Amino acid sequence: MQPKAGPRISQIHITPIAIVDPPLLNAAGLHAPYALRTVVELVTDDGISGISEIPGNRDIDEALAIAKDLLTGLDVFNLNEIRQVLSARFGTETIKRGETPWDQRKLVHIFSAIEVACMDIIGKVTGRPVVDLLGGKMRDRVPFSAYLFYKYEGAGGKLGFGIDPDATGWASARQAAALDPAGVVAQAKAMCAEFGFQSIKLKGGVFEPRQEVDAMFALREAFGPDVPLRVDPNALWKVETAIQYGKEMEPILEYLEDPVRGQENMAEVRKAVKTPLATNMCTTSFEDIPNSIRIGSEDIILSDHHFWGGLRSSMTLAGICETFGRGLSMHSNSHLGISLAAMVHLGAALPQLPYALDTHYPWQSDEIITQGRFQFEDGAVVVPSEPGLGVELDRQALATLHQNYLDCGLTKRDDEVEMQKVQPGWTFQSVRW
Amino acid sequence: MQPKAGPRISQIHITPIAIVDPPLLNAAGLHAPYALRTVVELVTDDGISGISEIPGNRDIDEALAIAKDLLTGLDVFNLNEIRQVLSARFGTETIKRGETPWDQRKLVHIFSAIEVACMDIIGKVTGRPVVDLLGGKMRDRVPFSAYLFYKYEGAGGKLGFGIDPDATGWASARQAAALDPAGVVAQAKAMCAEFGFQSIKLKGGVFEPRQEVDAMFALREAFGPDVPLRVDPNALWKVETAIQYGKEMEPILEYLEDPVRGQENMAEVRKAVKTPLATNMCTTSFEDIPNSIRIGSEDIILSDHHFWGGLRSSMTLAGICETFGRGLSMHSNSHLGISLAAMVHLGAALPQLPYALDTHYPWQSDEIITQGRFQFEDGAVVVPSEPGLGVELDRQALATLHQNYLDCGLTKRDDEVEMQKVQPGWTFQSVRW
Repeated sequence: MQPKAGPRISQIHITPIAIVDPPLLNAAGLHAPYALRTVVELVTDDGISGISEIPGNRDIDEALAIAKDLLTGLDVFNLNEIRQVLSARFGTETIKRGETPWDQRKLVHIFSAIEVACMDIIGKVTGRPVVDLLGGKMRDRVPFSAYLFYKYEGAGGKLGFGIDPDATGWASARQAAALDPAGVVAQAKAMCAEFGFQSIKLKGGVFEPRQEVDAMFALREAFGPDVPLRVDPNALWKVETAIQYGKEMEPILEYLEDPVRGQENMAEVRKAVKTPLATNMCTTSFEDIPNSIRIGSEDIILSDHHFWGGLRSSMTLAGICETFGRGLSMHSNSHLGISLAAMVHLGAALPQLPYALDTHYPWQSDEIITQGRFQFEDGAVVVPSEPGLGVELDRQALATLHQNYLDCGLTKRDDEVEMQKVQPGWTFQSVRW
Repeated sequence: MQPKAGPRISQIHITPIAIVDPPLLNAAGLHAPYALRTVVELVTDDGISGISEIPGNRDIDEALAIAKDLLTGLDVFNLNEIRQVLSARFGTETIKRGETPWDQRKLVHIFSAIEVACMDIIGKVTGRPVVDLLGGKMRDRVPFSAYLFYKYEGAGGKLGFGIDPDATGWASARQAAALDPAGVVAQAKAMCAEFGFQSIKLKGGVFEPRQEVDAMFALREAFGPDVPLRVDPNALWKVETAIQYGKEMEPILEYLEDPVRGQENMAEVRKAVKTPLATNMCTTSFEDIPNSIRIGSEDIILSDHHFWGGLRSSMTLAGICETFGRGLSMHSNSHLGISLAAMVHLGAALPQLPYALDTHYPWQSDEIITQGRFQFEDGAVVVPSEPGLGVELDRQALATLHQNYLDCGLTKRDDEVEMQKVQPGWTFQSVRW
């Protein structure tokens, strides 16, 4: 039996899209009414299509356009070679990195986009779901956490963009403001009722710590001790603030995410607070790992395959975490179902999954996959069993959302500018309290 | 398109074999006239066969027999589940570990045997060579090093076992004694002439250091500065000995392998000697990695998929090495072509391959694959391009070598006992000079 030839990359389609996003508050400011994503479609010489979705950014899209020529003709199975080719071209290029939680190193973004699409194709060619290409399913359902945000009233409509067309149930709460502990609890109740989440995370770093800590105690009061709670001040707290409130929340938190900025500060807080510390900000790449291990900056790494170079690299990260006794869970940005499918396949393959994963998915209402939006059952998503990612591109939706992109004029995420529309003169501060 | 069912493990055949091995000297004593290997064959419910080969040991064979029942019915793609099942049963069981370079933790041996055979099947099912299941080829040929041994005269015949039937060319030198620098150089010349090796390693730890160091300088004199040289005292040297001779050999060594025993001692030597240190003795498992990183015990890890839990775990190890700036190369024991094929697929997939790999393969003359013995071209093996490992089991040869196993009466490797047949009263000392 001779090996099959190819399949080789023949076409790469790069489509920036804009998806309606509610006015969510965070440390960097305010979500714009549209979140940007880029959809990548690879087509092989024998006509097999694979897709992926990454955070949208014009610089990344331009780099992907350059990558087209470099990758045409390469075997989709040869991911090592594909990475080498991209690394030779983009390995040293960095777009602004480190201050905000969405890290913009080109290589990992581009390779993630290409790798996931290749894995989708490999799955289709071999007749196996992507999870099987990562060593197989450790679980049939992947649990996610409720992801609470402080937010203004409205659902992408406040600032002049679209109104959620499916404004029923949870979507009605998505319209509501949540600006104090009572609003946070109401949001949590609505979200958990709709999706069945059994863990809760609050995106903090918006209001002064006392108010956010009070919200966490209000959640504990409302949900009791059996629902794990997390809060993420997005590195805006000073070390002494983090220690003070970290200690106060020790009895109620599953983990404390990025209370302070930088590995050294995290390590200092970690020594003083018993609650495990998680990060997607201070240890965000393989280059960050050695110092993380040396000084002990966190207990849990919140990986993100878009930022760690794809699904196979994320499995390597899982091996590193297992080797060094770190926990591993998953970070999210506003996203649609292609990213969710990739996250679910990866989450299903991870050897351990002690924490429910983050996802923004309930906050979005658009979709670009033919099957429509993923459903959550008791807060979990069933792992797709079809070959590849198990999702197919809805080309009509893609065209519509690409038109949104062209119309909205956004080219990269900038939550500070959006915030200034609401609070003139507001500026991002990397350490605030 | 629905996912394909299975393929599921239906049969597991475990066949211990004994292969003729020359009387090679090493720190642990003397190679027995037969080296033991175990050949594992998995057969799926739809009749697809996958094979692997691991170091032979009755305890491991018995554990594999227990594993049979645990694994029957599992999907060969679900390696994560297979590992979990084996880990639950064998995770804590250890056979004597640490003093000799062949480490006998059960789980990694068993899982390696099963994983490689599963990868062979997955390759056949998907029509791709195993290297493609590891991310694809980074190179078409995998370079190996000449592996020199001090040895007594003869080729497996001295102690009453078989005579090499192919005693021509290199095999004639395989008959020769090599007990001093001149003998080592003669062996190196014969081996490099026959196989084209472009790096040279001497297995040391046999004679007092002065004699072995003199052999290295004799090799340098004979081969010049363009042929990288390595020596492996197998951890028999004291720290001060290693520093003294390590410094002396700084101008001529590519790396110094395991001069001393234990991570702490290695770290001490590493601080004093400029030559990179390599190990397959002090850092031999993922459990050893954290302390290795903390104290800096070596520059290069010599992995061995048989001891590190298979091919995918070895890729994870490669990721760890890349992350922490370690080099990675490959260790070997006496082996046949199934193991060599697996080593070549892995070697082809490694992101970096700065050092030619170790192999004992030229020392063996038996074979159990239908294509006969692998050929070396300029010291390298061409990566098989057929689906799976690209080698098929020669059942007649397997039966013959299994009969050897039954006849020879050996059940595990014990180089000390063999040495005592030649030097009565000889005992292994973990630190000798």
